[in-house]
Amino acid sequence: MTTTKALSKFSRRCDFLHHRNLVPMKPISYRATTNDMAPSNTFFKRCKKVLPKWLKFGFIGYLMTNLHVQDLLNQMIRADEFYFSLIVVVIQEELSLGVDKQEEFVILAPITMKNSEGNRQISLVVTCSKWAFVAYTLQLFSSIPEYVKIVEVGPRDGLQNEKDIVPTAVKVELIKMLASSGLPVVEATSFVSPKWVPQLADAKDVMEAIKDCRGARFPVLTPNLKGFEAAVAAGAKEVAVFASASEGFSKSNINCSIEDSLIRYHEVALYASKLSIPVRGYISCVVGCPIEGVVSPSKVAYVAKKLCDMGCYEISLGDTIGVGTPGTVIPMLEAVIDAVPIEKLAVHFHDTYGQALSNILASLQMGISTVDSSVSGLGGCPYAKGASGNVATEDVVYMLNGLGVKTDVDLQKIMLAGNFIRKHLGNSSGSKTAIALSKITFHTSKL
Amino acid sequence: MTTTKALSKFSRRCDFLHHRNLVPMKPISYRATTNDMAPSNTFFKRCKKVLPKWLKFGFIGYLMTNLHVQDLLNQMIRADEFYFSLIVVVIQEELSLGVDKQEEFVILAPITMKNSEGNRQISLVVTCSKWAFVAYTLQLFSSIPEYVKIVEVGPRDGLQNEKDIVPTAVKVELIKMLASSGLPVVEATSFVSPKWVPQLADAKDVMEAIKDCRGARFPVLTPNLKGFEAAVAAGAKEVAVFASASEGFSKSNINCSIEDSLIRYHEVALYASKLSIPVRGYISCVVGCPIEGVVSPSKVAYVAKKLCDMGCYEISLGDTIGVGTPGTVIPMLEAVIDAVPIEKLAVHFHDTYGQALSNILASLQMGISTVDSSVSGLGGCPYAKGASGNVATEDVVYMLNGLGVKTDVDLQKIMLAGNFIRKHLGNSSGSKTAIALSKITFHTSKL
Repeated sequence: MTTTKALSKFSRRCDFLHHRNLVPMKPISYRATTNDMAPSNTFFKRCKKVLPKWLKFGFIGYLMTNLHVQDLLNQMIRADEFYFSLIVVVIQEELSLGVDKQEEFVILAPITMKNSEGNRQISLVVTCSKWAFVAYTLQLFSSIPEYVKIVEVGPRDGLQNEKDIVPTAVKVELIKMLASSGLPVVEATSFVSPKWVPQLADAKDVMEAIKDCRGARFPVLTPNLKGFEAAVAAGAKEVAVFASASEGFSKSNINCSIEDSLIRYHEVALYASKLSIPVRGYISCVVGCPIEGVVSPSKVAYVAKKLCDMGCYEISLGDTIGVGTPGTVIPMLEAVIDAVPIEKLAVHFHDTYGQALSNILASLQMGISTVDSSVSGLGGCPYAKGASGNVATEDVVYMLNGLGVKTDVDLQKIMLAGNFIRKHLGNSSGSKTAIALSKITFHTSKL
Repeated sequence: MTTTKALSKFSRRCDFLHHRNLVPMKPISYRATTNDMAPSNTFFKRCKKVLPKWLKFGFIGYLMTNLHVQDLLNQMIRADEFYFSLIVVVIQEELSLGVDKQEEFVILAPITMKNSEGNRQISLVVTCSKWAFVAYTLQLFSSIPEYVKIVEVGPRDGLQNEKDIVPTAVKVELIKMLASSGLPVVEATSFVSPKWVPQLADAKDVMEAIKDCRGARFPVLTPNLKGFEAAVAAGAKEVAVFASASEGFSKSNINCSIEDSLIRYHEVALYASKLSIPVRGYISCVVGCPIEGVVSPSKVAYVAKKLCDMGCYEISLGDTIGVGTPGTVIPMLEAVIDAVPIEKLAVHFHDTYGQALSNILASLQMGISTVDSSVSGLGGCPYAKGASGNVATEDVVYMLNGLGVKTDVDLQKIMLAGNFIRKHLGNSSGSKTAIALSKITFHTSKL
């Protein structure tokens, strides 16, 4: 990587910190020069004293300073991911003697290198702040994306798992409310056989009613070519196919083997490609299956690769029965990320065991930037009646807001949509955030 | 750090991986020798090809290999946290040409260094497996402790926030059931004025009834010297005091300023120390307050330091109104960890906004190893009637099991205790795990 490229990347990282309000907007300048690049034991001890105890990066930084400055800077440019940590220590070496322990520093940007007759000079722009933030960003936050696309699946995945059949007009109103809340994608309905999913038998009417609706995309589920044709005829501009990572679940859910389903979806994808209709791919049972138990990450990676190869623009990894924890979700994601570009991946967690948000957090930490969720947690778990289904959009948005991640979604409007559909269904919201915010009498919602 | 010490630490880290079943138990041996320590551009490219895309550590490893092997190993010994990543690349340098891309390697242990007439030799024990796991362990998992102590607060924090007053016999049975489930600590009751907390007016009788109960510790809340004396008279062997990080909350909850409360607790701590009674310190409102809004991390760190200095053996950081997300919890923890040894810290999250488990996950990633929770999520939120209170012990244990973290807690027994108290209260469990496991008809509970 060239210096220019590295600096531009570095500066983007700074913008990223700015967006999160983690550092002040106006850096102040500090100039440090140094020749001695073999830090003494004293320096090491000093670092240990000054660095926060949990800042493991300090040690790496220390290691790096065993190199000459020029080497160090070259290395930093290559290892742009570790910019901050390395610089922190270089700076500390210069500043720690003169720095009040209470006063903390964040390194912002940029670095310039000058050769002045053998003396190497580093100009660093630093700013007074909590440098804890930088390391924190690095350690647990570095892969969390700046923007997360939320794919709202309530009207389809949610309502198809609710006992009551909702009138078309109510569905349409719900979809419109969701679209107007800033959600970029609202899965509208499903063109599967009404025998299988009577809740969504009015797919055609729903599509007709929302055909002039703008602001969001409205993909629909299509199980096969017949469904695809019906969907397109009804005006669908985007479709989704649904495979499984578990053979047993594939057979029980869509009545065919994984391979057969992939052949079927390949036909759909081919046809869709001719019509320039984007296809999203779902994979169910990505960590566990109600029939087969544990599902191996390599199976998920295999199906994901197949869906990707047939042209799916996005693959949504579903923990259909909500059994995953970060302990199983992370290895699954690792396997899939090795097979499919990470930017094509979405996660779809059910909250059956209350694990959905932790799994989403872990997924964000892995760099996933698309999350499926369902307004007010619509939809139960067909394998444990009364248990929770989809993770609630409100809870996801609340967490993302707290993490400083952009979603463009208006939480209040999502809550109104949630109230609307829950009132109709006559049951209470599955979103803890929605319940809390609707009952809170204080201004804690701003926290 | 000496070589011996480093290797022993390294080998502990391997045990840690074994415990989590992340690597096979029987490593096979591979011997590599190398002289060339300035990896070429080709090597760099090769690494990039072989390393999983998300493995940022590869680059650091690459940097390190610019050093001589001996230096590298010395560095590794100092930087034991980064052992794995460094070795991965060294190994890759040796193996990548001969390695099938499908075949993946994990480095286990140990390293020995030999000098054979100028040639430096590294013996490495590696094992064929998914090395993704190692990096995963490093990246998101490295600070997660092997064992987490769960402090059950249901009988106190939970029941004090339930509307109904539970008969003493039921409380005692609940405490006994919880203690027999393997929980190391069950907070039993509170010696505050019955005027303030009528639900726990029977504190003395509860303590009398459990005085012969073994297997767990039973701390009780004591607001002042009077409460402390009553608790000790009733047989309490451990007490807890409760401060706030918010001035407004302190005044409204315990009717005095933070400073006054600390003076009061100092008296309790002094007296307790004379009687060799351990004191736990609670801090409420660690990220947000229903009265003051945002609470600054430095305030929490200040109160935590004070509690630590007066002799509290553990400080439990409570998000009393459950508004925190990892975005606010992590900076708060960073501030507190800088002031108080991390091993003295516990986290206490309320699930009001559904964020508790993600906050616990983030806390574990920061290295926190004590978590408060409440069986079946007993206890609501006094600031939002009908909203969730404490995070449910079952959900926490489910996540920890999934993460391979030891708790010694029997989830089934916890669920029985939860059923018992919920049946008595006539309401349903606040634990999604408990609901799912009690309704599931498949063997998914084993996932």
